[in-house]
Amino acid sequence: MKLYDLELSGNCYKVRLLAALIGVELDIEPVDFLDGAHKRLPVIDLNPFGELPVLVDGEVVLRDSQAILVYLARQYGGHQWWPDGAAQQGEVMQWLSTAANEIFNGPNAARLVDKFGLALDKERALAVSAHILPLLEQHLQRNEWLALDRPTIADLAVFPYVALGWEGGVTLDEYPAIQAWIGRIKQLPGYIDMPGI
Amino acid sequence: MKLYDLELSGNCYKVRLLAALIGVELDIEPVDFLDGAHKRLPVIDLNPFGELPVLVDGEVVLRDSQAILVYLARQYGGHQWWPDGAAQQGEVMQWLSTAANEIFNGPNAARLVDKFGLALDKERALAVSAHILPLLEQHLQRNEWLALDRPTIADLAVFPYVALGWEGGVTLDEYPAIQAWIGRIKQLPGYIDMPGI
Repeated sequence: MKLYDLELSGNCYKVRLLAALIGVELDIEPVDFLDGAHKRLPVIDLNPFGELPVLVDGEVVLRDSQAILVYLARQYGGHQWWPDGAAQQGEVMQWLSTAANEIFNGPNAARLVDKFGLALDKERALAVSAHILPLLEQHLQRNEWLALDRPTIADLAVFPYVALGWEGGVTLDEYPAIQAWIGRIKQLPGYIDMPGI
Repeated sequence: MKLYDLELSGNCYKVRLLAALIGVELDIEPVDFLDGAHKRLPVIDLNPFGELPVLVDGEVVLRDSQAILVYLARQYGGHQWWPDGAAQQGEVMQWLSTAANEIFNGPNAARLVDKFGLALDKERALAVSAHILPLLEQHLQRNEWLALDRPTIADLAVFPYVALGWEGGVTLDEYPAIQAWIGRIKQLPGYIDMPGI
């Protein structure tokens, strides 16, 4: 299957990471983001949102990194990474929304400003980060993993931009439980990293 | 089961709507949002994020409206509203992320400013709305429903704040396919509305 990919994107990385953890081989198709190739054919045809990553697996075409995590985990990962039961799915899903909203608009946005020069509101990105990181810290003081007491796609969805936040001035100095959690993720069998993490 | 609820919240409404559509009875517990009751006990204990809705169903406690939709649909709705297969879950999940991000930060944020006086960035809310609504329109010009060619929790997650956007100055005048889709949702057997829709 093909992943339209940007090496420096945390959203692309979370897909590459899950694939590595469950032993799925990806045909990586690098997309020149800074040149705007994600806004042109063929990517814009596969994803009208003009965003990366995009996954193509036979007939299946998916945008949105959280959706791709659900797909890969459900299709190729058994129930380890994305559970089957209602309460369990709900518990994981809470954090997929957090990844799509607070993490995306917090540490990710701060990094986009500082590292890639995007014209986003840095002050708001820092405010969102300052809101979500203490909540994450508090949760991880009492839990080893975000959901289900085991590693799931909840952790993979949330952790990349938290770990990359320092590239946007969002450090983890005050958040030891978050740091320890990132350390646990890095110890998972099959773990791969990306530049900046 | 108990729903900690705010009548005027689109996120609470989407939960009430799914419950009505699948015939689940909710014990509605109104929370005085403007008085800050969601930031105090007992709600803050159930949801440290200090947000509504919160669902309590026996041992299950869930924050985040998208997560609650997944839970209710999986637990009580068969596979009609939230499918079981990997590709199908991925297709729906794309729109749950859109609800958590662009819809939340676009039309919802604009409405929070105009209707409730929250100190959010209205200009950004309008910009996000102007980005997401044409994408939604384009998708709905070719599809009756957001995913799977049938009503799913994708539609229920996205539609409330799109339909409420006019309360924040985000109108649908230029988006006839979105208007027609809202009309289809309103025709679903068991449909209930909320103030403003």
